[in-house]
Amino acid sequence: MIETKDADVIVLGAGLAGSLLAVYLGRRGLKVKVFERRPDPRKAGYAGGRSINLALSHRGIWGLSGVGLEGAVLKHALPMRGRIMHPVKGDLAFQPYSADPSECINSISRGALNIALLDAAERTPGVTVEFGREAWAYPSTEGLSANDWPSRPIDKTSAGNLTVGRLRAPVYIATDGAYSFTRHHCTARDRVDYSQSYLGHGYKELHIPSAADLGLGSGHDGWALDPQALHIWPRGGAMMIALPNPDRTFTCTLFWPWEGPHSFANLKSDADVGAFFERHYPDVPPLMPTLAADFAKNPTSSLVTIRCWPWVWSEQGSSVALLGDAAHAIVPFYGQGMNAAFEDVRVLDDCIGRRSGLTPEALDEYQRLRKPNADAIADMALDNFVEMRDKVGSPAFLYKKRLEQLVHTLAPDRFTPQYNLVSFSTVPYAEAQRRGRELDHLLERLIPVIPADKAASMGEAAWKARVAALLHELAPR
Amino acid sequence: MIETKDADVIVLGAGLAGSLLAVYLGRRGLKVKVFERRPDPRKAGYAGGRSINLALSHRGIWGLSGVGLEGAVLKHALPMRGRIMHPVKGDLAFQPYSADPSECINSISRGALNIALLDAAERTPGVTVEFGREAWAYPSTEGLSANDWPSRPIDKTSAGNLTVGRLRAPVYIATDGAYSFTRHHCTARDRVDYSQSYLGHGYKELHIPSAADLGLGSGHDGWALDPQALHIWPRGGAMMIALPNPDRTFTCTLFWPWEGPHSFANLKSDADVGAFFERHYPDVPPLMPTLAADFAKNPTSSLVTIRCWPWVWSEQGSSVALLGDAAHAIVPFYGQGMNAAFEDVRVLDDCIGRRSGLTPEALDEYQRLRKPNADAIADMALDNFVEMRDKVGSPAFLYKKRLEQLVHTLAPDRFTPQYNLVSFSTVPYAEAQRRGRELDHLLERLIPVIPADKAASMGEAAWKARVAALLHELAPR
Repeated sequence: MIETKDADVIVLGAGLAGSLLAVYLGRRGLKVKVFERRPDPRKAGYAGGRSINLALSHRGIWGLSGVGLEGAVLKHALPMRGRIMHPVKGDLAFQPYSADPSECINSISRGALNIALLDAAERTPGVTVEFGREAWAYPSTEGLSANDWPSRPIDKTSAGNLTVGRLRAPVYIATDGAYSFTRHHCTARDRVDYSQSYLGHGYKELHIPSAADLGLGSGHDGWALDPQALHIWPRGGAMMIALPNPDRTFTCTLFWPWEGPHSFANLKSDADVGAFFERHYPDVPPLMPTLAADFAKNPTSSLVTIRCWPWVWSEQGSSVALLGDAAHAIVPFYGQGMNAAFEDVRVLDDCIGRRSGLTPEALDEYQRLRKPNADAIADMALDNFVEMRDKVGSPAFLYKKRLEQLVHTLAPDRFTPQYNLVSFSTVPYAEAQRRGRELDHLLERLIPVIPADKAASMGEAAWKARVAALLHELAPR
Repeated sequence: MIETKDADVIVLGAGLAGSLLAVYLGRRGLKVKVFERRPDPRKAGYAGGRSINLALSHRGIWGLSGVGLEGAVLKHALPMRGRIMHPVKGDLAFQPYSADPSECINSISRGALNIALLDAAERTPGVTVEFGREAWAYPSTEGLSANDWPSRPIDKTSAGNLTVGRLRAPVYIATDGAYSFTRHHCTARDRVDYSQSYLGHGYKELHIPSAADLGLGSGHDGWALDPQALHIWPRGGAMMIALPNPDRTFTCTLFWPWEGPHSFANLKSDADVGAFFERHYPDVPPLMPTLAADFAKNPTSSLVTIRCWPWVWSEQGSSVALLGDAAHAIVPFYGQGMNAAFEDVRVLDDCIGRRSGLTPEALDEYQRLRKPNADAIADMALDNFVEMRDKVGSPAFLYKKRLEQLVHTLAPDRFTPQYNLVSFSTVPYAEAQRRGRELDHLLERLIPVIPADKAASMGEAAWKARVAALLHELAPR
């Protein structure tokens, strides 16, 4: 049991998850110290992760709304109502995310969101945030303690000015992301199951300026492409996506193999890049005047799935816990990394309420509630990459999605598409995965009976009636 | 590129793999420095891993024979020709490992083997071994360098006497075991796939004294049990095994779940232990006068499978490589951990020969040759635990094994049991796994046609003729 403490809880990392967590913990009346390795983004400019916009959906909004932050955040966001597919040749195709047009995902800047959450954390009584402090916690026989910091000086010139000391708190929560230092130390303990698995694909961001800057006239209300959608260039084994920004630009992300014909390794010169885009992404070069320079300059980053168990270590009266990407980093193809982290925060807060405090029992309940759901969204995010890059452009896939929405409309209390459960509900991810599989199994039985060509020949009303009859037969109530 | 070097190669860890590796590398004319965290076992008494005897089989002998060490080692070993199963009630059952009685596995003391290999390393020109030195290597932008050591003092009193310095070599090879420090650092690099997966079972060692010390008279030539076999007490979900030692004792190992009815957690007092063994292992208490004390005193340890990729990092003219358990720790149920490590060593030496030196290309060839085989033995070792604890006692399993040996005898050039390929050949593990699956598939087709009861009723000769005819039909040449 620790005898003196510097805080009730130390949060390691003031990114999206850590900042929101600090707000919740402060509202519980706890004294919260937050340490962030990077400098204050409000002073130094945002230097966070390289993914500069994110898709905020229902779970993330639920996480924000528990402390009344959803309004302040959503005013910076742009709703996206579906996907627009860009084929190599031919017309764009729009596919709505939901039959209900009010259900959308929201493009938001990581930097703006982090700053809004940091401001909220610092406004919360009991919460202090220190920047430029690298710390981690690990369970030790002397109680759990933040390591002497700075353990790894942020840069050599400033190292001499940083306080070296040992901080103590009964609870440490690591929200320091996919490459969590705390987790790295904790995985060296006995009987910690852990895996890190990298995709054979990397990602690189590119930029589409506003319609005005491109000399395109008004464009789509000032954007070069429709800003009410997520744009996808599915290329089978590789893809590009684009999300709108409030300044009427788009941030594009290539998800390409590291090696092979359609890969980062394959493009060695500016001329290679230009010729490759003209061939495989022909509508893109006119929208990217700085394509070759951005391609050369912007980093190519890796994509990892992290699984760990346990997430919480409680010994001798003090605890270390992992939350968000530190516990369960996932690939970005379901747009759920941040949403899952915000859901973690609110579920942990619920556990604190039920257990009357931030106790080892509350932390244990949190990890047991969240682990199966984290595993489920990790799997679904990997599956969705295959869907987005390989299937989304195919007529068979588009027909299956139409059929899925019809089944949902015919029996909304029994069948909801997995995408909708994940993005527009707080149904636990593991249940969304299970129900998604059930619906998929049903669709795989319907399609051979009413394939796409037959549906096309029978007319909308007859098709709907036939599906309704089959549904009654295959899945009787 | 490093400019000055302290050695041609630094080996981190002077356990079984590191000591044998040093012998091979020294014979290649390289200047080899070996660092070992523990004290010299020849002076301090052996303080190595807790598993005090091991099963040396064909691959391990092949690894030793490349430098002529097999004779010196085998003289300390006891051959085991099969398994003897101990049921709760009823007779012991012997199951030979091979139809060829010359094929056996060899019980050997980890301590004696390590000392023999250390002696051989130190006799090899160019090789030096330093004890009490904890070091690790990691790839860095300054070239790959052994970290300042001692990074973690071995004990507080001696820390002040250890040299702190930075050592440089063009190649570092980490042979520091399942919990490798070097690997732990390297897994923090980008795009390193890694997993550590613990069994829900732990292990604990127990002791059977000699027949004389038990007052059993001559027993089996002085041993309390037959020393020419590995003894198994399969209990379905849990088991005990015993291996003979040259001093006429046996080392027993419990492999039990951590939690549950047949578990370590379930036995809380000496009385619990005694009653539990009387009930589930009734032939054991008479052989273990110190059972309750040993059970309370001896540690319970965990069982882990480690997978990692890559195993080699080469940058700026210098390389770090993992070998043995550091690259691919496996569970002990196939008796292959040490054998796989010795095979690693000889394969690496072959690569050095083919590539004319310990070059990045030689290290890369080593990792590409070994990785699929390490994955295969990891899987087979996990599968074999299920076989040993759950199946080995059942009549159906014993019949399947008899049939397997018969098929092998009828078509030895086409069908060899997986156990034999793994334990009595150097057929690559991945090929042993594939051929084992093929044979298993054939047996699963034979058994419904000639089940055990039918075989029993038809007599040996008729059974063999019927199997031969079926084999001709199901697997024509």
